[in-house]
Amino acid sequence: MKKCWLELADDLSLEDLPADATPGFDGDSDAAREATDRLRDELIDLQDRFHAQGRDALLIVFQAMDTGGKDGTIRRVFSGVNPAGIRMARFGRPSANELAHDYLWRVHPHAPARGQIVIFNRSHYEDVLVVRTNKLFPEPVWRRRYEHIRGFERMLADEGTTILKFYLHIDRDEQRKRLQARLDEPDKNWKFDAHDLEQRKLWDDYMAAYADAIRETSRPFAPWYIVPANRKWYRDYAVMSIIVDAMRRLDPRYPEPDYDPKKIRFK
Amino acid sequence: MKKCWLELADDLSLEDLPADATPGFDGDSDAAREATDRLRDELIDLQDRFHAQGRDALLIVFQAMDTGGKDGTIRRVFSGVNPAGIRMARFGRPSANELAHDYLWRVHPHAPARGQIVIFNRSHYEDVLVVRTNKLFPEPVWRRRYEHIRGFERMLADEGTTILKFYLHIDRDEQRKRLQARLDEPDKNWKFDAHDLEQRKLWDDYMAAYADAIRETSRPFAPWYIVPANRKWYRDYAVMSIIVDAMRRLDPRYPEPDYDPKKIRFK
Repeated sequence: MKKCWLELADDLSLEDLPADATPGFDGDSDAAREATDRLRDELIDLQDRFHAQGRDALLIVFQAMDTGGKDGTIRRVFSGVNPAGIRMARFGRPSANELAHDYLWRVHPHAPARGQIVIFNRSHYEDVLVVRTNKLFPEPVWRRRYEHIRGFERMLADEGTTILKFYLHIDRDEQRKRLQARLDEPDKNWKFDAHDLEQRKLWDDYMAAYADAIRETSRPFAPWYIVPANRKWYRDYAVMSIIVDAMRRLDPRYPEPDYDPKKIRFK
Repeated sequence: MKKCWLELADDLSLEDLPADATPGFDGDSDAAREATDRLRDELIDLQDRFHAQGRDALLIVFQAMDTGGKDGTIRRVFSGVNPAGIRMARFGRPSANELAHDYLWRVHPHAPARGQIVIFNRSHYEDVLVVRTNKLFPEPVWRRRYEHIRGFERMLADEGTTILKFYLHIDRDEQRKRLQARLDEPDKNWKFDAHDLEQRKLWDDYMAAYADAIRETSRPFAPWYIVPANRKWYRDYAVMSIIVDAMRRLDPRYPEPDYDPKKIRFK
């Protein structure tokens, strides 16, 4: 597979990475959409085998800044997949009962069963992102969570779960345009939340928090993919490519019958 | 506090530890029962403050061989505690859906909230005990679980949970007597399960599995207590003492009012 994501070298910050790049793809937007559609057909076929086989589980995490495109990506990549085997879990502001427990308590019940794909729309990573940028807990609390998270994902992987984590990378100017569009376009007004303006002021803090989280928790058993996401057609193509490639490598197959289908005839 | 448990030195096996010992207590059974009753009154008071304060969580794990006394200990130690703040979770043979997930998936949702005590009657430790002795998974699978479990308990502890783990230690001869009693005493017939006889044949394997599990996962943030349990009156006293001591150290207090109660008068 062509590499359609960016690496965060140790001496770089996320803002050094071009959010409008299109690594691994040199066609135009129409070509990307066509390629994405073809890959979706393959995804649908792979998922059918994956579900029937019930051997592996697949967890796909999406994180991004506000307007980064989590919802749009999930809609465009996964629409068409049989809902019997795929499910999205959204992690918003925690409830009082969730806050009374450890931060993985609300997450773990959504871990996929064998044969299932689960999509996390936001995730336990908020507990080292929004918690840090908004100073909801002191640094020692969120800093030790990196190790918890590595351990949690390691355990899931050891027990049969493939984990893919996506950071949809937009730049500050792209966010400005998208927030403005939520005010300018009546059909998007419902998406506007004044809270997003407060969080936008913390942009630099978020970039630092994301960079640390990605570096601290990207491991072979649970890699992070930084996908340039200013151009939606590229973002969708890249995410789709990475997921299809991972599923191809799992090579799911329909279970072999434990009888000879040719020897049974209905009367 | 007097030390009312046994240490498993590196060069010893569990069978080297006397299951009829009474460390830290030199009275007779009547004196032990009286002491246990006094401690229970203190436990009830401590738990009331603990629940009102809602600052810490407490997880108490019980593991033992069949007939080891998990149910009896739980009944005798905790009866009288306000059920609003205490709950027991029992982990028996996993369901098909539980087996389709990682082995901590069915356990984590039962982790206590702040202000709650949760008792595990069996636990995730079965996944390195019965799984090992009955060869349900190959050794590499259960062996790496020690690290998962350390990480899981470390995370719970970091996030505010005090963890106490009890191994109720009976010897082979005591189990023989207790199994026989289940046949000889009509009121105990319902407890008899032919499956227990199969497991009794694996006694030596279980002792090795318990010793490894205890050594691999006893940590300052989640210690194991090996309590001699041939004598029920001592076992109850020892477990009660350890729990009350841990709660004393948490020093729970009713929340301070954020108003002056003397300045408010109802008309």
